[in-house]
Amino acid sequence: MNNFEFASPTKIVFGKGTEKEVGKRAAEYSKSVLIHYGSDRVKKSGLFDTVVASLKAEGIEYSELGGVMPNPRLGLVREGIELCKRKDIGLILALGGGSVIDSAKGIAAGVANPDQDVWDYFIGKADPKACMPVGVILTIPAAGSEASQSCVLTNENGWYKRGRNNELFRPKFAIMNPELTFSLPPYQTASGIADIMSHVMERYFTNVQKVGFTDRLCEATLKTVIENAPLVIENPEDYDARAEIMWASTVAHNDLLSTGRIGDFGSHQIEHELSGIYDVAHGAGLAVIQPAWMKHIYKHDVTRFVQFAVRVWNVDERFDNPERTALEGIERLKAFFSSIGMPVTLKELGVSADRFDEIAAKTFQERGSGVGNYVKLSEKDVKAILEIARE
Amino acid sequence: MNNFEFASPTKIVFGKGTEKEVGKRAAEYSKSVLIHYGSDRVKKSGLFDTVVASLKAEGIEYSELGGVMPNPRLGLVREGIELCKRKDIGLILALGGGSVIDSAKGIAAGVANPDQDVWDYFIGKADPKACMPVGVILTIPAAGSEASQSCVLTNENGWYKRGRNNELFRPKFAIMNPELTFSLPPYQTASGIADIMSHVMERYFTNVQKVGFTDRLCEATLKTVIENAPLVIENPEDYDARAEIMWASTVAHNDLLSTGRIGDFGSHQIEHELSGIYDVAHGAGLAVIQPAWMKHIYKHDVTRFVQFAVRVWNVDERFDNPERTALEGIERLKAFFSSIGMPVTLKELGVSADRFDEIAAKTFQERGSGVGNYVKLSEKDVKAILEIARE
Repeated sequence: MNNFEFASPTKIVFGKGTEKEVGKRAAEYSKSVLIHYGSDRVKKSGLFDTVVASLKAEGIEYSELGGVMPNPRLGLVREGIELCKRKDIGLILALGGGSVIDSAKGIAAGVANPDQDVWDYFIGKADPKACMPVGVILTIPAAGSEASQSCVLTNENGWYKRGRNNELFRPKFAIMNPELTFSLPPYQTASGIADIMSHVMERYFTNVQKVGFTDRLCEATLKTVIENAPLVIENPEDYDARAEIMWASTVAHNDLLSTGRIGDFGSHQIEHELSGIYDVAHGAGLAVIQPAWMKHIYKHDVTRFVQFAVRVWNVDERFDNPERTALEGIERLKAFFSSIGMPVTLKELGVSADRFDEIAAKTFQERGSGVGNYVKLSEKDVKAILEIARE
Repeated sequence: MNNFEFASPTKIVFGKGTEKEVGKRAAEYSKSVLIHYGSDRVKKSGLFDTVVASLKAEGIEYSELGGVMPNPRLGLVREGIELCKRKDIGLILALGGGSVIDSAKGIAAGVANPDQDVWDYFIGKADPKACMPVGVILTIPAAGSEASQSCVLTNENGWYKRGRNNELFRPKFAIMNPELTFSLPPYQTASGIADIMSHVMERYFTNVQKVGFTDRLCEATLKTVIENAPLVIENPEDYDARAEIMWASTVAHNDLLSTGRIGDFGSHQIEHELSGIYDVAHGAGLAVIQPAWMKHIYKHDVTRFVQFAVRVWNVDERFDNPERTALEGIERLKAFFSSIGMPVTLKELGVSADRFDEIAAKTFQERGSGVGNYVKLSEKDVKAILEIARE
């Protein structure tokens, strides 16, 4: 096991009706709040009004900034920074999923560091020194951004999608009511599930030896998501199944599952190019890329893939043929993604082979630390993975 | 799943050599530190000198208060409170295991609330309003107090051992170097293991339905401890096995495993009377009481005990005989405790049957909320459990 540091300071407020507490939680930080959101869905659903009423009851003034797109854009972040300065905002309240939360984190970092350019954090040119408080009301369990140190933004100038980890990015509180996810359409639900599982799998595949505890925590999280996924696809209003997936989404990415180990994240890096260029749903992109990545690299450590197959997918181990056992686990992952309505080929995603070279090349641009950790990928590897995922 | 709140703000600094960072961590809180510890073991081992050197390098003044006993006493807590006031201490640094950490928490709460009596927190008469910062260098993985909201003290006036949970009790940082546990004797190592497992099992047995995620996290934690226990008993300097157990001890009790569910803690309450009266090692007491508790109450929910047997103990499920499967799981737990050198009867512990009535009666004294949650126990139940554990 490697040395590590870990804390998960974000106050999780989980369960039915918890969004009504937002005013009380926000008041601990500021009397001037920016409500940040994506589409009008949060207004149509009544959530926006609930939030405003709760803020008003605490005497909190609010401004609003909507329009966050999936794969949140740097342009809106810059707009948010100016708005916060103008309105003297003290807390950004993100209403939505990972895109809105990450946009809020970008704004929060930009406001708190007026001498730096926010994009520099994402291309490794600068480190934020401070961050405004961010609060969350989560409506999409997927990115795990509600309690994570991660933030991913897309720069429209060249369509670079780049992530940055920093402890300052952890939200102060995250209100999580599974009922708010009842209205998520099946495709978005399934994309979220693929994203959650990917966060765990990116951590699971590690070269660090003797990390049995976090292995088992990863397996527990994956099995939970796998068991509950068909329940929420079948019945979107299954509270307990929605709750299990929602809580798993947070644990999958708050770095508990990284303690003492180094994950891979190569599939995420490749997928960022897909969704940067094609604007596909991040989880759908991962459902295509990650099994292809596994097929390309599993020989790096067949034993780990056997463990994955046996413990996560209940594959009956073939002791005389570890490779077959390993491959069966990867096949079950693919079959699972298909079963919940995810694409498993680039063709299904609408990504044509004539852009593979471009995607592979771009994966390595403005990315100092290379692509992947478990296996360091070359441009040739990325092309091979795209070929495997082709159709 | 129930509604819940959760945060784990304690900064864990885990791994080889991390104790040398203590000055830097302490300096974030105060330039005047009380080093709190138990026996001279921390001086003989060189840890005390390492800590002092690290504090001095940061210009931190220190006082010291040793002499914490297992089942830490209220008397020393009161002494520590006076000392902190006199010396204007700003951070208590606990060097040791749960007893030292809990003593430090008691002192920290006492200092910060001069208008209240600290014992009142433990008998439900008052709530602390504030708490001084506590830092930890952990040398015994067992109690999980290094990141928990729990504190257990023993009042010598009547030998009442009583616990209190409060978010204010969470330490600010916990430095955890598995190498510092190499010198733990086998019996103390095994007692710690029993305590860790008990913290998980107290949470596992719940009446809350549809808590599959935390079930699996509990099972993952138990399996990790079960797998690594024989390794550390056999080779006390197995770094990775020590590390797995140490990290599991924290996760077992920081309340992640309680999220959305209500545990039992009846076995802990009964054991508190044993160790309050007989001063036995807490973990050893739990190794005796908890399997007896299981045998007494398993019919309350046979299915849960079947799950425990199958998932935690790899019992081959007898579908035609759930009770037998359930009982087999309990037997394996007992056999496991025996295998690592723990007592499994009160006779082995030196507790004689003529005091069962007294122990049972005392379990209910000054305890407002009753004994147990999964199953609410009567005094008669407690006597029956003691009888099962007799020999």
